[in-house]
Amino acid sequence: MSSCQRDEILAAIEAVRTHNPLVQCITNTVVQQFTANVLLAVGASPAMVDLPGEAGPFAEAADGLLLNPGTPSSEQFLGMREAATRAASTGTPFVVDPVGVGGLQLRTAVVSDILVEGPTAVRGNASEIGVITQATSGGRGVDSQDSVADVLDSAKDYVAHTGQPLTISGPADAIVHPDGAIWVEGGHELLTKVIGTGCSLGAMCAAYLGAAAHASGNELAALVGAHAHLKAAGSVAATKAQAPGSFAVALLDALYELSPTEILSHVTLREA
Amino acid sequence: MSSCQRDEILAAIEAVRTHNPLVQCITNTVVQQFTANVLLAVGASPAMVDLPGEAGPFAEAADGLLLNPGTPSSEQFLGMREAATRAASTGTPFVVDPVGVGGLQLRTAVVSDILVEGPTAVRGNASEIGVITQATSGGRGVDSQDSVADVLDSAKDYVAHTGQPLTISGPADAIVHPDGAIWVEGGHELLTKVIGTGCSLGAMCAAYLGAAAHASGNELAALVGAHAHLKAAGSVAATKAQAPGSFAVALLDALYELSPTEILSHVTLREA
Amino acid sequence: MSSCQRDEILAAIEAVRTHNPLVQCITNTVVQQFTANVLLAVGASPAMVDLPGEAGPFAEAADGLLLNPGTPSSEQFLGMREAATRAASTGTPFVVDPVGVGGLQLRTAVVSDILVEGPTAVRGNASEIGVITQATSGGRGVDSQDSVADVLDSAKDYVAHTGQPLTISGPADAIVHPDGAIWVEGGHELLTKVIGTGCSLGAMCAAYLGAAAHASGNELAALVGAHAHLKAAGSVAATKAQAPGSFAVALLDALYELSPTEILSHVTLREA
Repeated sequence: MSSCQRDEILAAIEAVRTHNPLVQCITNTVVQQFTANVLLAVGASPAMVDLPGEAGPFAEAADGLLLNPGTPSSEQFLGMREAATRAASTGTPFVVDPVGVGGLQLRTAVVSDILVEGPTAVRGNASEIGVITQATSGGRGVDSQDSVADVLDSAKDYVAHTGQPLTISGPADAIVHPDGAIWVEGGHELLTKVIGTGCSLGAMCAAYLGAAAHASGNELAALVGAHAHLKAAGSVAATKAQAPGSFAVALLDALYELSPTEILSHVTLREA
Repeated sequence: MSSCQRDEILAAIEAVRTHNPLVQCITNTVVQQFTANVLLAVGASPAMVDLPGEAGPFAEAADGLLLNPGTPSSEQFLGMREAATRAASTGTPFVVDPVGVGGLQLRTAVVSDILVEGPTAVRGNASEIGVITQATSGGRGVDSQDSVADVLDSAKDYVAHTGQPLTISGPADAIVHPDGAIWVEGGHELLTKVIGTGCSLGAMCAAYLGAAAHASGNELAALVGAHAHLKAAGSVAATKAQAPGSFAVALLDALYELSPTEILSHVTLREA
Repeated sequence: MSSCQRDEILAAIEAVRTHNPLVQCITNTVVQQFTANVLLAVGASPAMVDLPGEAGPFAEAADGLLLNPGTPSSEQFLGMREAATRAASTGTPFVVDPVGVGGLQLRTAVVSDILVEGPTAVRGNASEIGVITQATSGGRGVDSQDSVADVLDSAKDYVAHTGQPLTISGPADAIVHPDGAIWVEGGHELLTKVIGTGCSLGAMCAAYLGAAAHASGNELAALVGAHAHLKAAGSVAATKAQAPGSFAVALLDALYELSPTEILSHVTLREA
């Protein structure tokens, strides 16, 4: 990472706190509370508006949008399609988190249609990204059965071909963007023992991209900033808690308390 | 506040713990878990029954009902209407929390219909109350863009005209009732960094009104008691935690632990 | 309990951590987050897949299935039926948690149909089990109005007649299985002040039965192990926290940290 890029990442983190982006989350009911608390902790404002008729107009007004079909209903699928179309046509940054694609057929079809709208970014685990880039056939339930490194080349090919950024979560996260590919290393294994950390990262990406649209406009720095923020908070939380109940509490505290400089001090960034 | 009113508020707080009111919450999926934990902490019993066909009969059996259209579905809207009608006809106290009205059209129409049923109270932020009293056009997502003071006069007019109490949440809360208007001061800014504190306050109002119906019947004291209870717990939690993860834990603990006298010692009440 | 049975329970607890069972939860939205965190803490992997068209295929792939109609929708009812049928036909262990049956008609009818599919176990509070065994007419909302001892005889008759195990939660839990009936004593009253502890126990039963299917196959030991695990974690959490917010955090920590031997040291088991 050049120092210039480092400055851009610091600015991306600061922008979320400065601009307080309003983030519409059409996401699964398992993680809505945690996702909302994560967004509040990082400086954004959450709003879970998914009803058809409300979801589209809200997508135009929001600063960012997350689409995560973890526990869809027929009605929520309609809300997702409406919001994605409106976000794409009005320029609201939107992130797709393709939870469980591959193994679960109905959501796979909906996500496939939404990808045509051209999301600002897609965030998933290695198996989910592998499905989207046609490198793998899916995970075990909502868990990955592939490593980030396994799907990195296919992700680079996909990004080069489509121009759509992908981020891949794992022990180290990979950010793959037309402007470059970066590993974000850090965090702690307890992040996998708290439900919703990955789903919340998708929401953080929407918040970061939404803030960046009001500031530098640097999408790559925004995506790296979001991933670094969660990894760093996980590292700090693990110094305070050794079991998942207290770790989740410490994680929210750290997301709220860490300064941009502290965040970067807890992760390692390198080219992927 | 006269000492008489102070005694009535203390009695209202005590009544929740004595009568353990069964509170039906037809509320948004983001805050259901937190709301249920808040109700358990203050001495009530939560039950989230929103399915048409079950919601109505349950509203007759419950001690109190909350209607909060934060993440509605078509089916839940039907459950809300059914429960409101039954509560109104059978005398179950019910509270409307008009989340996001104004900006979001479908729920605005449903809330408007439910208000005709004559809720026991409406609780919202300043922008939401402003919409109901036709003083403002709504907030930003689910956040208020108005101050409590901005909408207080229109709220007083509305209450004088309709006889329906309103409560307005903010840095200081205003309780506006035909029997009087009272400011409840206290709490802490971290209450705005934990999702569901406002929504849970709506549920607490239903619990307090449900308990009061078995005790003094003093609605004003019940509404002031509910708001004082949350504000006081927020004040106490802020002495133990400086970030939102640990603050939320301390808040639930304080809701459970504070005695009625301690609650009133942490807030300031004055006429509004 | 003979020492042989004790070894089998220890093995059942260990099996969950060894086999990391994938547990499909079709459960209420109030407790999905807590349930998922409980499953992660005990060593299982949660997946809340309830959409018709996805729920059935997933029930075949999962190691265990929980059906809990706490906040059903019409669509989720269809997902439950589809998953139950597929689990029954393909041999996936499945647990029914009949939340609120008796008082709430629509779910009572659905649960009745699902029981015909032959669940691996039913877990409920005394009022719910009383409804299923036709000993009582139901509770107050989702709370029990009966004692475990009140319904134990009818539960034994039901199990003897149908061959379907029942577990009954209360201050002491009763496990009633064709191979024997066992009391599990321990825990703490604060378990009733945190939403979702009972619902999560249903999910733990599905995890334990799913792991047992890959190991000893001893269902009775699996059910006793699940109940002992929660009771023991409650006992330990109560030594660290005296109010429900911090108790819930300590409970998740204890579920994660306690060894099988420590779990059994915190409960008393005796024949029922």
